[in-house]
Amino acid sequence: MKNVYFDNAATTQMREEVITSITEVMRENYGNPSSSHSFGRSSKVLIEQSRKTIAQCLNVSAGEIVFTSGGTEADNLVLRSAVRDLGITHIITSKIEHHAVLHTIEQLKKEYDITISYVRLGTKGDIDYLHLETLLQAKGKALVSLMHINNEIGNILDIQHVANLCKANNALFHSDAVQSIGHYNMDLQEIQVDFLAASAHKFHGPKGVGFAFVRKNSGLLPLIFGGEQERGFRAGTESVHNIIGIEAALKSAYYHLNKEVEYIKDLKRYFIDEIINNIPKVTFNGNSDDLNKSTYTLVNICLPIPPKKAAMLLFQLDLKGIACSKGSACQSGSSQNSHVLTEILSDADLQKPSIRFSFSIYNTKEEVDYVVNVLKEFIE
Amino acid sequence: MKNVYFDNAATTQMREEVITSITEVMRENYGNPSSSHSFGRSSKVLIEQSRKTIAQCLNVSAGEIVFTSGGTEADNLVLRSAVRDLGITHIITSKIEHHAVLHTIEQLKKEYDITISYVRLGTKGDIDYLHLETLLQAKGKALVSLMHINNEIGNILDIQHVANLCKANNALFHSDAVQSIGHYNMDLQEIQVDFLAASAHKFHGPKGVGFAFVRKNSGLLPLIFGGEQERGFRAGTESVHNIIGIEAALKSAYYHLNKEVEYIKDLKRYFIDEIINNIPKVTFNGNSDDLNKSTYTLVNICLPIPPKKAAMLLFQLDLKGIACSKGSACQSGSSQNSHVLTEILSDADLQKPSIRFSFSIYNTKEEVDYVVNVLKEFIE
Repeated sequence: MKNVYFDNAATTQMREEVITSITEVMRENYGNPSSSHSFGRSSKVLIEQSRKTIAQCLNVSAGEIVFTSGGTEADNLVLRSAVRDLGITHIITSKIEHHAVLHTIEQLKKEYDITISYVRLGTKGDIDYLHLETLLQAKGKALVSLMHINNEIGNILDIQHVANLCKANNALFHSDAVQSIGHYNMDLQEIQVDFLAASAHKFHGPKGVGFAFVRKNSGLLPLIFGGEQERGFRAGTESVHNIIGIEAALKSAYYHLNKEVEYIKDLKRYFIDEIINNIPKVTFNGNSDDLNKSTYTLVNICLPIPPKKAAMLLFQLDLKGIACSKGSACQSGSSQNSHVLTEILSDADLQKPSIRFSFSIYNTKEEVDYVVNVLKEFIE
Repeated sequence: MKNVYFDNAATTQMREEVITSITEVMRENYGNPSSSHSFGRSSKVLIEQSRKTIAQCLNVSAGEIVFTSGGTEADNLVLRSAVRDLGITHIITSKIEHHAVLHTIEQLKKEYDITISYVRLGTKGDIDYLHLETLLQAKGKALVSLMHINNEIGNILDIQHVANLCKANNALFHSDAVQSIGHYNMDLQEIQVDFLAASAHKFHGPKGVGFAFVRKNSGLLPLIFGGEQERGFRAGTESVHNIIGIEAALKSAYYHLNKEVEYIKDLKRYFIDEIINNIPKVTFNGNSDDLNKSTYTLVNICLPIPPKKAAMLLFQLDLKGIACSKGSACQSGSSQNSHVLTEILSDADLQKPSIRFSFSIYNTKEEVDYVVNVLKEFIE
């Protein structure tokens, strides 16, 4: 078997119907949405329809969706403006957030007089909600930035609980939901987040487009200044075809959601069983072996392989056509350990190789068999 | 005749071969360029090849090209980092720059203690180079931001001269070259700009991708923080298909350049002749009727129409299927006059309607005849 793509948390294969929609728009709708003539208006109609579709999926108003070039830009937009324009002096986050959040906050600390607090984590990477509550009582206007689903270990945040804690303590709440939007049904009337970041290429959409959910009257100001696009929230000619792509991808995701969740969940369950049966002493990082506490799309395993041999593991998997990941894609070139695992694993476990396998509808049980077999042979 | 698209300075129709390249990449190369496995590497190869192609076109190193979500982001990246990280305290610009520059600078002034100087303009919108020289002698580390080709009136900056002045006065020079990249051959070894912004959709490429040229060792830091993409200059998963799109568009533009310049220049010449012959008292804004001092892609005319009737003009043109523009696309919805024309026209001329017509290879002389005829009939 060749080419098993088990790195769907890094990015996903695009759905055929998404490619078709994008191609059609590139050919037929080249007007600039800001132009008032017919060419412009037809592009404008397309992006406003996309905005509506996405807003409906999340049960929010269209005006609360701001299209960006991706999840990272959405995180930057929210965090920078929160500090610069909304009077935030205290950011509460965790050490296992995505770098789009962590590095942005570190940069903001260089530029502004803010305090950063990191909420305590359990050994499984769980947020200590009591500690969060304590942190929320500190002086200074606070923003909490905690991701909904961790991209490396799959832990699911109790986002509703955090939203409630933030409301009760008069803090703002931003969630990087890049691993959950398009994978879970979310009702943002129920979940009172103030801001949220999403990215199309994590749910079979195009790379280079995402959105920020920005709750009405938040007072947020742009990251990128210039024209009045996106109701003044984000300057720059809209990437119309990409926006149609994110709409098409989210529509498809929602349309097939129940069926596809079951399919992938079953695959993950099978992977866990097979790996336990075939690799003695394997352990699971974070909550990734708990189907209730982690996303159905990924597992992160720690393999009983000595360091010397471990250096060859990813190389061997790659040779066998298996795509998977040490940490997030952003770190895969580096020899450093994942910053997420560094926070939660024991020194002994950090010596052993950990691998994230992440699944999609395009994967099969045969692929799982193949991968488990390759791992087994490598270890023996 | 229906659907005459004379708004190519706002955005352009995509070339068929660009659409084909993008579609192929969306289908075949979905790996995340930051992933170290084969799927990731093949995407990485694609974007690095694109970077090389673009660098060759401009005669710079590949490492000096930073892909962004468009020209506006590139302008924001350069201007913000210049002030925040490079010690710039004085920005010299002009009142007829694109809003991506003007509004960003205004925002920076709110955030930082900087001085903004606006260089004097002639009645044709020409930069007063002597005044620029004087401004460059003021105290404080300066950055000059002047666009290469004005998007509304087409005036061409003597970019080489400005680069020399900046060098001589130890100032940095950024140029928004969104209207010239892909339309003119530019050798950035000869033209010593420090920074430059470009956008694919202005030369028959996709919307939502552009690049900043950032000269080596400039010390520039990111606008968007997170992963280490773009050698640390720009976080966020790369829009691989869009990057392949900008490469394909620039390659095609350079391949056909001489022939296409001649074709469009001839069209503009014809438009000017026909409009003069058919509309008595028409005048041209900026240098747009001078083929040596303005880009071959656009004209901006002031029509002898009384204000009351003028209100119907764009509406009428639209009804007749003609796409053109009052100012830049970003302003077309607004009832205000263009900020560019406001700077250079007399009060009397500002009472009359001004229209920008901008051309591409997909336009014909028959379309010019049609448009001139519609204008003539409207005026009579």
